[in-house]
Amino acid sequence: MSFEVTILGSSSALPTSERFPTAHLLNANERFFLIDCGEGTQMQLRRYRLRLGKIHHIFISHIHGDHTFGLFGLLSSYNLLGREEPLHIYGPDLLEEMLLDHLKYSRSDLGYNLLFHRIQCRRTALIYEDKNIEVLSLPLIHRVPTCGFLFREKPRERNILKEKITEYGIPVRQIVEIKKGADLVLTGGAVIPNAELTLPPARPRSYAYCSDTRPNKAILQLIKGVDILYHEATFMHDDAKLAHETFHTTSRQAAEMAKNAGAGKLLIGHFSSRYKHISEFESEAKMVFQNTVAVNDGDVFEVD
Amino acid sequence: MSFEVTILGSSSALPTSERFPTAHLLNANERFFLIDCGEGTQMQLRRYRLRLGKIHHIFISHIHGDHTFGLFGLLSSYNLLGREEPLHIYGPDLLEEMLLDHLKYSRSDLGYNLLFHRIQCRRTALIYEDKNIEVLSLPLIHRVPTCGFLFREKPRERNILKEKITEYGIPVRQIVEIKKGADLVLTGGAVIPNAELTLPPARPRSYAYCSDTRPNKAILQLIKGVDILYHEATFMHDDAKLAHETFHTTSRQAAEMAKNAGAGKLLIGHFSSRYKHISEFESEAKMVFQNTVAVNDGDVFEVD
Repeated sequence: MSFEVTILGSSSALPTSERFPTAHLLNANERFFLIDCGEGTQMQLRRYRLRLGKIHHIFISHIHGDHTFGLFGLLSSYNLLGREEPLHIYGPDLLEEMLLDHLKYSRSDLGYNLLFHRIQCRRTALIYEDKNIEVLSLPLIHRVPTCGFLFREKPRERNILKEKITEYGIPVRQIVEIKKGADLVLTGGAVIPNAELTLPPARPRSYAYCSDTRPNKAILQLIKGVDILYHEATFMHDDAKLAHETFHTTSRQAAEMAKNAGAGKLLIGHFSSRYKHISEFESEAKMVFQNTVAVNDGDVFEVD
Repeated sequence: MSFEVTILGSSSALPTSERFPTAHLLNANERFFLIDCGEGTQMQLRRYRLRLGKIHHIFISHIHGDHTFGLFGLLSSYNLLGREEPLHIYGPDLLEEMLLDHLKYSRSDLGYNLLFHRIQCRRTALIYEDKNIEVLSLPLIHRVPTCGFLFREKPRERNILKEKITEYGIPVRQIVEIKKGADLVLTGGAVIPNAELTLPPARPRSYAYCSDTRPNKAILQLIKGVDILYHEATFMHDDAKLAHETFHTTSRQAAEMAKNAGAGKLLIGHFSSRYKHISEFESEAKMVFQNTVAVNDGDVFEVD
């Protein structure tokens, strides 16, 4: 059961020759969620041999170009590739207007349904769920309405031991209940406790994505204990004033968020192109939160 | 005096891991002209170490996304980089509307002047000129108003021989006239013919860009004798019917255009992603016009 994030772009607004603008791809058990879509995202997907057609859900944090300008080409490519499955886009109100305004110039109707789900960025909400996973929006603090996303697996059922099914001849109907935690009551009335029949399920895994924002303590409770926290770190802490003015976060502040959330791992990215040595972001953050990685395009991070 | 074209993107509508959508950069004597601007153009400029700030004129052939989607990011990056020099964009009417519609979402005024020059694509016109170069629009045949561009150097003045200036003590005022072709009349009335005083100037160089289009014989006269002709070749000739229906050109047809125009060299690009072996495009074209190159991203072609 895969649960891994691929970094498709790690620059902030100005891309460099090494770093494309922001986009992440989360593979949660072979369901693919695209998170932000900076210019060139479709080329990065091809470069890292990730199949465009597997993406059905795109989450956009805010309308700034370094998080959205790849959408136009991607939507167009889906059309050319003959896509028929609907595509769901989750984002702030203004994004839908921008896309609709844009699509009127393509002059051809998309051959697939584009379903837009508007997110209110001021409060958290459950914005997506399926059998295995749910996605919560995380209110962020930026110059335009912006939200992050918490992807978390739903608690799984307990794993029933095959030999116990044989031993007690447990019928299917009861297997369903036992997986949910029920004990087994035998015909004679004897009770076999659930703990003898099952093993506990794998712990649900989680990934939180926070870009762009000032540090927002209000979301700490929501991301408490998250396995991987991606948090933007546009500036080094020497530039904390600039970070505050531009509604961004410093590397040290991102590490404080990870520490206070009790995250398993911190990924930092969205680096301003003013800095030459990205390793310094990592060093700064590690002073506060050791398990930090300053990401590069193409990096893959897995939660075991 | 440089006169060279860098290929920034060579795919058609669907980019691949190797080929970005269409964009060319012409360096004509250290003046840089960007021609079309597919998604990722700004990243390609950085990748090939070409300075964004040197571009003051952008020519867009038509509004299709694989020729325009890089504009949004480029215009935004210029703003972030503190650009102050005006930026000139030449393109069909609809492009201006598209850009204006788009810019209203950026919510910040550009810090530089964006000057849009509307091109009528139905007939040729002089759309740009400076001291050294002029640009003519070339009417093309596509599904939306589309034009190509002919960049050609203006005829230069004759090169006066330094030793003749000394020998006859020619004053500056007369040097100007002699460079333009005048003979030298000495005080006594004797005439020194211009051919004894000067060498002929370098031949003006030229580059024609034709994408996207059905083969258009109507422009042959305009591009007659061009040094380098770039012509789209989206399809192989086996797919000539498809090329016609989609208003594109086959590799063989592009070669016929080069042959009939008496071009020096033919560059072909804008290859459909349906073909695996791009070398076959080159082979097909070479049957008709030997000096053909199927271009790759990053290729540089110089006119000596």
